[in-house]
Amino acid sequence: MTGLARLSLNQETIKQWSLPELAEGCAKAGVRGVGLWRAPVQEYGPERAARLVRDAGLTVTSLCRGGFFTAIDPAARAAALDDNRAALDEAATLGTDTLVLVSGGLPEGSRDLAGARERIADALGDLAPYAAERGVRLAIEPLHPMYAADRCVVSTLAQALDLAERFPADRVGVVVDTYHLWWDDTVAAQIERAGRGGRIASFQLADWITPLPEGVLLGRGQLGDGSVDFRWFRERVDATGFDGPIEVEIFNPGLWARDGSEVLAEIAERYRTHVL
Amino acid sequence: MTGLARLSLNQETIKQWSLPELAEGCAKAGVRGVGLWRAPVQEYGPERAARLVRDAGLTVTSLCRGGFFTAIDPAARAAALDDNRAALDEAATLGTDTLVLVSGGLPEGSRDLAGARERIADALGDLAPYAAERGVRLAIEPLHPMYAADRCVVSTLAQALDLAERFPADRVGVVVDTYHLWWDDTVAAQIERAGRGGRIASFQLADWITPLPEGVLLGRGQLGDGSVDFRWFRERVDATGFDGPIEVEIFNPGLWARDGSEVLAEIAERYRTHVL
Repeated sequence: MTGLARLSLNQETIKQWSLPELAEGCAKAGVRGVGLWRAPVQEYGPERAARLVRDAGLTVTSLCRGGFFTAIDPAARAAALDDNRAALDEAATLGTDTLVLVSGGLPEGSRDLAGARERIADALGDLAPYAAERGVRLAIEPLHPMYAADRCVVSTLAQALDLAERFPADRVGVVVDTYHLWWDDTVAAQIERAGRGGRIASFQLADWITPLPEGVLLGRGQLGDGSVDFRWFRERVDATGFDGPIEVEIFNPGLWARDGSEVLAEIAERYRTHVL
Repeated sequence: MTGLARLSLNQETIKQWSLPELAEGCAKAGVRGVGLWRAPVQEYGPERAARLVRDAGLTVTSLCRGGFFTAIDPAARAAALDDNRAALDEAATLGTDTLVLVSGGLPEGSRDLAGARERIADALGDLAPYAAERGVRLAIEPLHPMYAADRCVVSTLAQALDLAERFPADRVGVVVDTYHLWWDDTVAAQIERAGRGGRIASFQLADWITPLPEGVLLGRGQLGDGSVDFRWFRERVDATGFDGPIEVEIFNPGLWARDGSEVLAEIAERYRTHVL
């Protein structure tokens, strides 16, 4: 189908699909890229998953997710680093150059945002050489400020870049996700900064819809259903010279309850209307 | 009670109390200030409410709320301005110098955040002289970015100050509310900026707790129950020379289900432990 060359489908968007269904469904729809998640990949087997998507002619545009770097307890911290090394191995096996990081929230009882952010920097320093050996870049994803306490103390693109820029650009990049960043009036300047430094590792799309559900995790909107101006974002990301994949990552039980092929066709149509 | 000289109770925190109960409860607990809301004040009658709190020896530290300035439709816009003039009249009757503004979200179908913010500036320009005649300051409250679509496109203290600074400091100020701003790593610099310009019209406290409830309106935490470092905030606000009221504004059904006096005693104790 026309215009879909850069479109990538993050598998969580149609999580009712098994990996083989995902590979077949994307190939049929003319979608050439997929973003994968660790749990379904591990369940299927990383080597087998890599072969499956390769045989279907697909590129793995990202692996979700590493991170959760903010623990204070040394044993928990060591376990997190081990787990991230395993994630980097899996990313290399899948042939993707991008491991998306959800950096972690405040540890139980802590109110020290600055300290948590420093522990993220320390973990990036520990992991960057290991990532580089495997040809995988660590991609810091700023999450919406409503996740600062329990998932990610990196809340803005500026904060993500402040962290990433402590390391070489080929080792640590950032994720530009419209769902997390749409509200921020400094985001255009920060996208330009990210592009100038060669830091854009991934560009992800979801729309912002209300009311938010309890726990605020599964309320992302289909493209065009909400408040995000996707074309505005895409033009600003493109203007930096970024020409990589544009990955649709929507967590929405309404989409999960529908036929996967129908959802993917709708995404393709919305992508043409609202993004291109 | 010791240390409560600056403590103000926003009435929504103990909304199970009628206005007379609020006045009596605060007087008994040694709390000298109250923040009021328009609906209960209108129901009781503004003049009568003013007399009631004055007779109890209380100061009205703020009136909530004006705002909702982002409508595009001229009739809706005119109605909003009329309603804000009425709110300013009520604030003057109550003897408070602060009308808190919730500026408004995106109009139905709009994705134009910058345009919405400009309409807020236009409304402030229309209302500022009327406010000044009544001795009331318009106080722009930046709301957490999770409210940007449906309640307030002013999401950071920097944005609120960008708007306020177009007008004289005695006409337009800002609200520093920990619940909305705690996650932002630029907030210390912006508090300093606000203080330097004499823009801090109100300092409000609520804690950030998770998981957020559906709709994310009524999930604020009792002081000390969550992620906010209140002393850090209070010290930074104090360092600007601000010595006004410190208003506790918590929306939480758990607090509303309890005995009001018990809740207020708990607030006073938490205030001493976590804020002073």
